[in-house]
Amino acid sequence: MPSGTITVTSTRRFELIDITRPISQAVATSGCVSGVCHLYNPHTTAAVTINEGADPAVRDDLVTALTTIVPFNLPYQHQEGNSPAHVMATLVGSSATIFIEGGTLRLGTWQRIFFCEFDGARTRKLHWKILADGA
Amino acid sequence: MPSGTITVTSTRRFELIDITRPISQAVATSGCVSGVCHLYNPHTTAAVTINEGADPAVRDDLVTALTTIVPFNLPYQHQEGNSPAHVMATLVGSSATIFIEGGTLRLGTWQRIFFCEFDGARTRKLHWKILADGA
Amino acid sequence: MPSGTITVTSTRRFELIDITRPISQAVATSGCVSGVCHLYNPHTTAAVTINEGADPAVRDDLVTALTTIVPFNLPYQHQEGNSPAHVMATLVGSSATIFIEGGTLRLGTWQRIFFCEFDGARTRKLHWKILADGA
Repeated sequence: MPSGTITVTSTRRFELIDITRPISQAVATSGCVSGVCHLYNPHTTAAVTINEGADPAVRDDLVTALTTIVPFNLPYQHQEGNSPAHVMATLVGSSATIFIEGGTLRLGTWQRIFFCEFDGARTRKLHWKILADGA
Repeated sequence: MPSGTITVTSTRRFELIDITRPISQAVATSGCVSGVCHLYNPHTTAAVTINEGADPAVRDDLVTALTTIVPFNLPYQHQEGNSPAHVMATLVGSSATIFIEGGTLRLGTWQRIFFCEFDGARTRKLHWKILADGA
Repeated sequence: MPSGTITVTSTRRFELIDITRPISQAVATSGCVSGVCHLYNPHTTAAVTINEGADPAVRDDLVTALTTIVPFNLPYQHQEGNSPAHVMATLVGSSATIFIEGGTLRLGTWQRIFFCEFDGARTRKLHWKILADGA
C-alpha cells in the first residue's frame, strides 16, 4: 500500500501548521477508495493533531494553552532546555488515524490536520501510510 | 470492511459518555474475528478515550481534572468562548484503536470506551471502522 | 496476522519503561515487511507513548511534568486514591501506532517506545498487533 513522507517547515518555536492539503493529495494519488490513513511524526519535540482549521485563532489558542499548561521552570534534568517540548509531544501524541471513504479523507466539517512544532524553527518530516480495507 | 457511525447525545457542557455497548454491537454484527476497530471523532470540541468504567466517579474525576488543567482565563483569540474545549480535544485525542480478537473487543478488565463531550449539551457523531487482519 | 502480549514490571509509582526491544523483536519474528504495529495498553492507570530514549533524563522529566500538570489535591470522588493516574492515562493515551517498513519499526532517530506506569509498582501487560499492508 502507498506510503510516503511530507516535509514541514516551521518559522517559530511553537507553531501548528496545517498539513491537510498534502495529506489529502497523497490520498487522492493513492487511489485508495476505502481504508485508513495513518500519520506518524518521527520527532520527539513535535506531534500531530486534528482540530479546527476554519478560524486560525484556534491553532494560536492551542499554543497559548499548551505553553501555559506545561511548566517551563521545573527542575528538568535534560540539558537541552527543550523538556517542555518533549512533554507536549507526549500529551498531544505522535500519530493520528483518519478514515478514507469515497476516495477522500473523512474529516469533520471544521477539522484540519496540524503538524505541531514545539521546538522550532526547523524543517521536519511527517510519514503517512494508507491501509485499504478492500471495501 | 464494515464501518458506520453512532450518535451520542450529551446533557452537560462537560461529560464522558460510555459508548462501549454500541461499539461492541458493531463489532459483533460485523462478523470480524480478528483485527482492529478504529474510532474517530469528527468534532473539534470533543474526543474519545478509554478509561475505567466500573466506578462512575472516574469519569467525573476526569472532567474535574481536565477543567482544572486547561485554563479558562487565558487571552484566547477564538471568539466562540470554547477554546478550552478545543485544547481538551487535542490533549485527549480524536481517535482510538482497539483490538478485536475472538470476535469481540479486547478491552482490559476495567476499561470502557468514552465519548468526551467538552462543549455540550449536543448531539454528536462518532465514526467506527473495522479492519480485519485475515487471522 | 501476528499479535501478542509483553509483560512489563515497574518498580516505582510513576515510571516510563523502554519497551522498544521486545516490540522490535515481535516485528522481526512476525516476518512482516510492510505494515503497521499497533500497541494497546489494557490498564486504566497506565499508558503508552513514544519519546526520546537517548537521554534517560527525558523520561524522568516527563514524570516530573505529568505529576505537576495533573493536580493531586482536587476533590476526586474515586476512592482508590489514584485518580491522577487515571487522568494521566487519558492525557497520554492507551494506544500507539508505528509504521513497519523493510521489516523493522520505522521509529525516528531519537524515538523509543515507553510503557507509562502511573500507579506502580506492578506487573502489567501490553498487547501488540501487526497489520501487514501487502506492499
